[in-house]
Amino acid sequence: MSIVYYHSNTERGQIWKTWLAEHAPDQQFFIWPEAGDPQAVKYLVCWEIPPDLQQLFPNLQVIFSVGAGADQFNYSLLPEGVKVVRMIEPGLKQDMVGYITFSVLALQRGMPRYLQQQQQQLWQKHPAPQAEHCRVGILGLGTLGQAAASQLISLGFSCAGWSRTEKTISGVRCWHGDEQLAEFLANTDILVCLLPLTALTRGILCSSLFDQLPTGASLVHAGRGQQLNHDDLLLALDSGQLSHAIVDVTDPEPLPVGHPFWSHPGIWLTPHMASETRSESSVKVLLENILRHDRGEEMSGVIDPHRGY
Amino acid sequence: MSIVYYHSNTERGQIWKTWLAEHAPDQQFFIWPEAGDPQAVKYLVCWEIPPDLQQLFPNLQVIFSVGAGADQFNYSLLPEGVKVVRMIEPGLKQDMVGYITFSVLALQRGMPRYLQQQQQQLWQKHPAPQAEHCRVGILGLGTLGQAAASQLISLGFSCAGWSRTEKTISGVRCWHGDEQLAEFLANTDILVCLLPLTALTRGILCSSLFDQLPTGASLVHAGRGQQLNHDDLLLALDSGQLSHAIVDVTDPEPLPVGHPFWSHPGIWLTPHMASETRSESSVKVLLENILRHDRGEEMSGVIDPHRGY
Repeated sequence: MSIVYYHSNTERGQIWKTWLAEHAPDQQFFIWPEAGDPQAVKYLVCWEIPPDLQQLFPNLQVIFSVGAGADQFNYSLLPEGVKVVRMIEPGLKQDMVGYITFSVLALQRGMPRYLQQQQQQLWQKHPAPQAEHCRVGILGLGTLGQAAASQLISLGFSCAGWSRTEKTISGVRCWHGDEQLAEFLANTDILVCLLPLTALTRGILCSSLFDQLPTGASLVHAGRGQQLNHDDLLLALDSGQLSHAIVDVTDPEPLPVGHPFWSHPGIWLTPHMASETRSESSVKVLLENILRHDRGEEMSGVIDPHRGY
Repeated sequence: MSIVYYHSNTERGQIWKTWLAEHAPDQQFFIWPEAGDPQAVKYLVCWEIPPDLQQLFPNLQVIFSVGAGADQFNYSLLPEGVKVVRMIEPGLKQDMVGYITFSVLALQRGMPRYLQQQQQQLWQKHPAPQAEHCRVGILGLGTLGQAAASQLISLGFSCAGWSRTEKTISGVRCWHGDEQLAEFLANTDILVCLLPLTALTRGILCSSLFDQLPTGASLVHAGRGQQLNHDDLLLALDSGQLSHAIVDVTDPEPLPVGHPFWSHPGIWLTPHMASETRSESSVKVLLENILRHDRGEEMSGVIDPHRGY
């Protein structure tokens, strides 16, 4: 039984290989194109699936995504019975919570306006809503959304969330399903998108959604680029329906030079850096999942191929 | 026995008067120039002390500062036996914690660089230290410093603090006194100043202090303007000794047009907006202190005139 690491980031692969050799010497870990005996490969770690997967590794049981999302896989091409697991690890979670916390505080306190005033050499205070009167609404209440909500609550924010299926989270007003989306949006001053990319969330951040927010609301987008309609965001900012947006993901990435997001005064743009799998903490999660699977236990982060997350 | 509110922000005075009339109708509250019977005035709420204080209110017992600091008072001019109390209230604390959290996250994740890259239309990620490897050092471990430390620890940061006198705070490596300042600074990547303004802290943020930080460290200054030597900060930024500074307080305020801070790429400047006494939450703290004093109990926030905080 062996593990093959099939990904362009070979630096992470080397860190994992070294760590496993020390902490779990029983695990055979290969960095592609090395693979040992193809018949023995039970686990594949990758971002994109090799095209000839079944021929390469006929006895594969689990595919581990190197990232928090697993939207890049074409599930219809996966062999029957192969499980897909996404990466939920503490380092990635901590970074995402930090990015969301930074962004929500920036929007609550009007930091984009103060940095513009600095360019104008203007010293002028503006009233800001108190945190408890600033309603943060999180689209997507998975591991990352829940962790972000918990941190924002500790800063005094009023926190709500929306998810496809019903959830109950202490201190968070939870909405769910298409029929509750409108009321969730009507009660949100700062909208945070942490949704997974699925057929149902592609293009969800569009004019009809923005129009259901209170006038002057703002957006933090750290989900996936394909969820955001760029033209609609520009329209909403230019009309004043949205006051500001902090955007970490776009479609395509990198965003081409000359794209209007770069120079729009209502947008802070960051290059998909909100969070990323960390080598040191993620290899422990990988090993724990492999050991669980070997014992016949449930792994953490298993994807439901019908939902896509 | 009565209270006189002696301050230019009469809007806050009106909110306090209305709230007290409803919740503590026994308290006589006047907004200057109204004062009722001057002999009956026991409590004065102010930012600056009236020049003829003893003649105006011969039976005064307590002066309440409307702000978190009480460095504006000339203690040698105060009548014998009059106590001075600064304002520590939950709204002001929450806002300061939010400002510090925003600033530390911005510096850890390199947000100033990303916003500069946006202007250059450059999509490029840079490595950032993990929170646990990012050493935040807080100058000043009073109510605000402790609350900021607690929030930063919950975000995973490694947190230390320095104060004049010895303190013990769970989860925070505490340094104190002149003789431990150098070692505190040598172990600080992001320095946060929340010191009170006293004779000992005036000008403390100067070249000799900056030079004791690791090269490339950064600064968040939310103490008092007179603590920062402007020329020395510019030198430290231009030499690379400091990588960035987020500055909320300057001397003078407002900062004059043309001052180099406005246009320096290594400075984010905000107009003394990090935190401010909130009318709604502060009046409760005022009343609680008055009731305590009437009962002969210790008030919260009493200033030691020898230390000045």
